[in-house]
Amino acid sequence: MKKTSNKIVLIGAGAVGTSFMYSAINQGIASDYVLIDAFPQAAEGNALDLADTIAVLPNPFTSIKAGDYSDCADADVIVITAGLPQKEGETRLDMVAANAVIMKTIALEVKKSGFKGISIIASNPVDVLTLIYQEVTGFDQHKVIGSGTTLDSSRLRRLLAEKLSVGPESVDAFLAGEHGDSSVAVWSHASVMGQPISKYIADKKITQAELDKIRDEAVNMAYKIISLKRATFYGIGVCLTRIVKAVLRNERATLMVGAKLNGEYGNKDLFTGVPAIIGENGWSSIIEWDLNDFEQAQFNKSCETLSTSITKAREAIK
Amino acid sequence: MKKTSNKIVLIGAGAVGTSFMYSAINQGIASDYVLIDAFPQAAEGNALDLADTIAVLPNPFTSIKAGDYSDCADADVIVITAGLPQKEGETRLDMVAANAVIMKTIALEVKKSGFKGISIIASNPVDVLTLIYQEVTGFDQHKVIGSGTTLDSSRLRRLLAEKLSVGPESVDAFLAGEHGDSSVAVWSHASVMGQPISKYIADKKITQAELDKIRDEAVNMAYKIISLKRATFYGIGVCLTRIVKAVLRNERATLMVGAKLNGEYGNKDLFTGVPAIIGENGWSSIIEWDLNDFEQAQFNKSCETLSTSITKAREAIK
Amino acid sequence: MKKTSNKIVLIGAGAVGTSFMYSAINQGIASDYVLIDAFPQAAEGNALDLADTIAVLPNPFTSIKAGDYSDCADADVIVITAGLPQKEGETRLDMVAANAVIMKTIALEVKKSGFKGISIIASNPVDVLTLIYQEVTGFDQHKVIGSGTTLDSSRLRRLLAEKLSVGPESVDAFLAGEHGDSSVAVWSHASVMGQPISKYIADKKITQAELDKIRDEAVNMAYKIISLKRATFYGIGVCLTRIVKAVLRNERATLMVGAKLNGEYGNKDLFTGVPAIIGENGWSSIIEWDLNDFEQAQFNKSCETLSTSITKAREAIK
Amino acid sequence: MKKTSNKIVLIGAGAVGTSFMYSAINQGIASDYVLIDAFPQAAEGNALDLADTIAVLPNPFTSIKAGDYSDCADADVIVITAGLPQKEGETRLDMVAANAVIMKTIALEVKKSGFKGISIIASNPVDVLTLIYQEVTGFDQHKVIGSGTTLDSSRLRRLLAEKLSVGPESVDAFLAGEHGDSSVAVWSHASVMGQPISKYIADKKITQAELDKIRDEAVNMAYKIISLKRATFYGIGVCLTRIVKAVLRNERATLMVGAKLNGEYGNKDLFTGVPAIIGENGWSSIIEWDLNDFEQAQFNKSCETLSTSITKAREAIK
Repeated sequence: MKKTSNKIVLIGAGAVGTSFMYSAINQGIASDYVLIDAFPQAAEGNALDLADTIAVLPNPFTSIKAGDYSDCADADVIVITAGLPQKEGETRLDMVAANAVIMKTIALEVKKSGFKGISIIASNPVDVLTLIYQEVTGFDQHKVIGSGTTLDSSRLRRLLAEKLSVGPESVDAFLAGEHGDSSVAVWSHASVMGQPISKYIADKKITQAELDKIRDEAVNMAYKIISLKRATFYGIGVCLTRIVKAVLRNERATLMVGAKLNGEYGNKDLFTGVPAIIGENGWSSIIEWDLNDFEQAQFNKSCETLSTSITKAREAIK
Repeated sequence: MKKTSNKIVLIGAGAVGTSFMYSAINQGIASDYVLIDAFPQAAEGNALDLADTIAVLPNPFTSIKAGDYSDCADADVIVITAGLPQKEGETRLDMVAANAVIMKTIALEVKKSGFKGISIIASNPVDVLTLIYQEVTGFDQHKVIGSGTTLDSSRLRRLLAEKLSVGPESVDAFLAGEHGDSSVAVWSHASVMGQPISKYIADKKITQAELDKIRDEAVNMAYKIISLKRATFYGIGVCLTRIVKAVLRNERATLMVGAKLNGEYGNKDLFTGVPAIIGENGWSSIIEWDLNDFEQAQFNKSCETLSTSITKAREAIK
Repeated sequence: MKKTSNKIVLIGAGAVGTSFMYSAINQGIASDYVLIDAFPQAAEGNALDLADTIAVLPNPFTSIKAGDYSDCADADVIVITAGLPQKEGETRLDMVAANAVIMKTIALEVKKSGFKGISIIASNPVDVLTLIYQEVTGFDQHKVIGSGTTLDSSRLRRLLAEKLSVGPESVDAFLAGEHGDSSVAVWSHASVMGQPISKYIADKKITQAELDKIRDEAVNMAYKIISLKRATFYGIGVCLTRIVKAVLRNERATLMVGAKLNGEYGNKDLFTGVPAIIGENGWSSIIEWDLNDFEQAQFNKSCETLSTSITKAREAIK
Repeated sequence: MKKTSNKIVLIGAGAVGTSFMYSAINQGIASDYVLIDAFPQAAEGNALDLADTIAVLPNPFTSIKAGDYSDCADADVIVITAGLPQKEGETRLDMVAANAVIMKTIALEVKKSGFKGISIIASNPVDVLTLIYQEVTGFDQHKVIGSGTTLDSSRLRRLLAEKLSVGPESVDAFLAGEHGDSSVAVWSHASVMGQPISKYIADKKITQAELDKIRDEAVNMAYKIISLKRATFYGIGVCLTRIVKAVLRNERATLMVGAKLNGEYGNKDLFTGVPAIIGENGWSSIIEWDLNDFEQAQFNKSCETLSTSITKAREAIK
C-alpha cells in the first residue's frame, strides 16, 4: 500500500543538521525522521533530545531515531549537512578538499542504499559539494538540490526590509551564485510588492551606497555570527525546512537553491544559487533573469571561483 | 492604543534559551523577541542567527534583537533560562548555590524594570530557583511559573506511548514533584483515552515492572542525553513554547508546571511540578489528585529534598 | 517514483463536505484535492471558490479541482459526505433508506476506481452508512472509518470544559455508540488531566444532574443548531480534518471514530462510535473500557437501534 | 493588566463572515471571537457550530459567542461583512444604496461602543462602504481597511501561476482599483521571482492576449462562482484572515487592501484597492507604482465609477 506519511533522513547530526530537524518538527512537515552521523552517539543523543518534544507539539510526528544508511532506501528526502564546520576566519572554499572526501563517502553509501527520493545538500562549500554528490551518485541532476543562496537571500531580504520598514515576506531581493564571498546581489530584479528597487532609489528612499552596504552586511553575516557565537545554524535550519517543505508538498515554489547550470546565465557544469522551481521531482526550470553587465560579470567571476574549487575537490576524491 | 502583538523576553541566551526561541519562532507564537545574556555577544549572535529565518518562515515574526532589562517593561512574558548548566554526573540540585545568586540578580533587575507580565523559569534546579525568583521579586505567585515536570512528563508519555503503540498525544501520564531524581510517577492517574493504566496491567498488556522501568528511563533521560551530547536543550525548548503559548492564548490548558503549593498535596511554601491550569494570568487552580500511599510518600520525600535545597539557596543569597 | 504529496477526494460537495475541505486547506494537511458531486456545478463552483484561497494561505496546497471517480484511483483518502441532509425535526435514522441507496452507488463507483486508500464516511445516519459502504465495497474493515461520535464527544468536552473553567484540550469525555439520540455518555472514563470526573462530584464541584444536563445538551446540539441556522457543518468539518490528519500523518491518535465491532463491548457486525487508534492503515485496535452497568445497557440499546436501522438500509439496497 | 490574547468581533454572520471566522479558527490566529448579526439566531447558531470545533483544533481558541455591540469596546479587530448579498446578474455597485444605510447603522453602533482598534470592511460594494464607514465613524483613516482587491489579486495570481506552472506564492500580480468590474490588471508590475511578466512575453512563454484573458477570468470569477453555487465566500474568508493576521501580528505585510487615496495615483477622497503596508496600526504608506498610460487611464475610470457610486451612497444615508 502507498505510504501516506513522509520520511526524512538527516546525514550529519551536528548543530546545522539538528537545527534543521528541530525546525522541521516544530513546523510539523513530516512524520518519520532518521539521524545518521559518523559519531553514532551524536545521532543517538539528538534523536533522544528531539523525541522529548513529541508529546507537547501541536502537530506531533510519528517517530524519530538514530539510524544508518539502510534507512535511506524508502526515504522521501535526504538532507546532508555533514562535514567539517566553517571556522572563524576561514572561507567556505577553504574547507573543500577534506569535505569533498567526506561527501564522496556519503554519496556512495546513499547510492548503495537504493534511495530514490530528493537529495538536499547543505554541507560547505555547498555549491562544490552538491556537484560532487551528484557526480558520485550519478543521480538525475534535478533530484539533487543545493541549499544555494537561500540563506544569503534571506539575509538580504531581512536587511532590506528593515531599511524600508516593510515585512520581509513582501520583499523580493536575491543573492545569486556562490554561497559565499563571491555571491552577487541582483538588484536589477529586487522589488517590494512589485515596486522595483530602482524606483526607491529614484524617489530617494534609499541610495545605491546603502544597497551596497546591505549586500556586504548580508554576505559577511556568517562571519559576524561566527565571531559572536562561533557557528551559525538557526538560519540555515529554517531554510532547509523551507526547501524540504516545497518538495514534500509539491509546491512549485521558486527558491534561490543550488541548481545545475547547463548554459543558463552563460555558465555550465556547476551547481550554484539561482532561482529555480521546487516540487516533488526536485528542481525543474531555472528562471533566467536578464542580468545587467555588472551583475553578469560578477556572476561569471563567482562561477570561476567555484570552478577552481571544483577542480580542487575532484582531485581530492580521485 | 492597545498593542495587539506579543513580546517575549528571554533571559539566558544559551542552548536551552535559544532552542526555546527557535521553537517559538518556528511555531509562530509571538511577534517581538528580545534576548538578554550576561555575555552580550551571545545575545547578539543568536539574535542575528535567529533573524536570518524571518524571510522564510510561514508565519514570520516582526522583530528580534539583543536587549537589556529595560525591554522587560512592556513584555508579555519573560522566560528565564540563565544559569550554569548541568554537567555530566552532576544532579540538578548540585548547582543550587551558584545559580541562586545568579537568579537573585536577575530577579532584582526584572523587578526594577517594571515588568507586569508572566514569568516562566527554567533555570536549574528549577523548583528551587522558581521560588527564589518569586520571593525576591515579590511577584504574585500565580504570575510565576516553573517549567516543573513538563519535560519529565513529556518523556514519560513518549516512552509509555511507544510501549503501547499509540500516539503520545493520547496518553495521560505524569511525573510530579521535583524536576529531577526524586520525581514521582503518578501511575494511579495514568490513562490512554480514558482507559486507566491499571486496566492495561489487569489485561496483561503491560506489567508494573515495565512501568517502573519506563519511569526510571524517563527520570534518567537527561543523564543519558548529556552523556551522549553533553547537554539537553531541544526537549525543554518545546516545553517552554507550550507553556508560553498557553499563557499568550489564554488556553486554560492543564500542564505539569511548577506551581506554588499552599497545602495542596500536604505540602507548602515551595514550587514543584503539579497539574495546574495555565492562562493569561499565569497558573490558577492546582488539580489535587488522590495520590495512593506510595505516591504520597514519594511526593513528600521529593518536597523534603527540595526544602533542603531551598534552605541552601536562601543562605547563598542572603 | 514515490509520490510524496497527499491527495484527498471528497465525495459530496455540500456544506459539510466543503466545510471539511475548507478546514483542511486552512490547516494545510494535504496537497491535492478533488471534489465529486452528483451536481457537477456544485463541485465546480466550490472548487473555484476554494482555489481563490491558494495565493493567501500560509501553507498553500498544490491543486484543487472538480473531478470524477477515476480520481479515486491514486487518492490517499476519500471522504464521503454525500446524502440528503438532516432536516429540522428529523432524526439521523429517519434518512436511512434513501441515503443507503445513494451510498451503495458511491461504494460501487469507488470500488471500480481501484482505490486503495482509507475511506472516511460522514454521511448520515453515519454508523449505518459506514457499514453499508464497507459491505458493498468489500474493503478491509480497518480501512473504512466512520466519523462516529467524534463530533458528539467534541461537544461534550467543550461543554464540560466550560463548566469546569478549563481548556477542552485537557478534558477527556466521551459519547460512544450511535452518532445520534442514543449515544452514551461514558462518565466512568471522563477525566481532567487524569482527575476522574467522579472526584469532581465527590468534591462537589459538579453534580451528576449537571453532567446529565451536559450530556443532553451535547446530544441535542445538532437539533439546536439546525433550528437556528438550518444545518450544521463547521463542527463536523474540523472533526473530519482531525481524522484525515491522523491517517495522513500516521499519528496513532485515539479518536471516537466509527469502527467495526467484532465482539468488543459485547456487540458485533456494526460500525459505531468507540475509542480506536487511527494511523496510515486506518483504525487498528479498539480500546475496551470497563463500562458500568448503566453505560453498558445504554450502549446495547444504542446498538439495537442501529441494528434495526441496518436491516432497513440493507433492504433498501437489495 | 495587559491582555495578551486577541479578540475579534464579526459583524454580519452570513456565509462570508462565518467563512472568515472558520478560516481564522482553523489557522488559530486569535483567542476570543464574537459574532453579531441583525438576526440573532444566525449569530447564535453559527457561534454554536463553530464552538464544536474547539476540542479538536491543533491550536484551540478560548471563547466564541454571539454578542452585541458592547463587545466591540475591548476588541482588537472588527470585521464587517454585513449587507445584502450580490445576486446572480447583479454588479457589486447595484447594491449600493441599501447597503450604505445598513453600514451607517453599524458604523454608529461601533462608534458608540468606544471601539479603539482596527476595522476591516468586506461588505459590498466594498470600496464605497469602507468610505461610508470611515466617514460616519470619523475614525482615523489608517485604522479602517477595506478588503479592496485582495481577493481579485489572489484570483489573478492563481490563474497566472497555473498558466506558468509555478506556485502562486511565487507570483506577484495585482488587480487594483474597484473590487469589481472596473478593476485594473497592473501587468507593468507583475513578476515571478523577480522576473517581469514582460520578459515572459518577450520569451514567448505567454502572450498579452493570454494575460488579458486571465484578467477577464479573474474579474468575472465572482459571477462564475455565483452562477454555479449562488454565492462566493471561501475565497474572501481566507483573504480576511490574511489581513487580520497582518494586523494582529504587526507584520507590515504589503497587501492589495482598500486604503484611502489622498492624491496617490492621481486620485483622492476614496478607498480603493492599492498596495499598502499593514500592521498593528492599520494601513500605513501606500506604495505608488509608476503605472503605464493604459493602466493609469483605467485606474482613473475605476475611481470615477466609484465616485458616482459614492455620491449615490452618501445621498442614501443623508
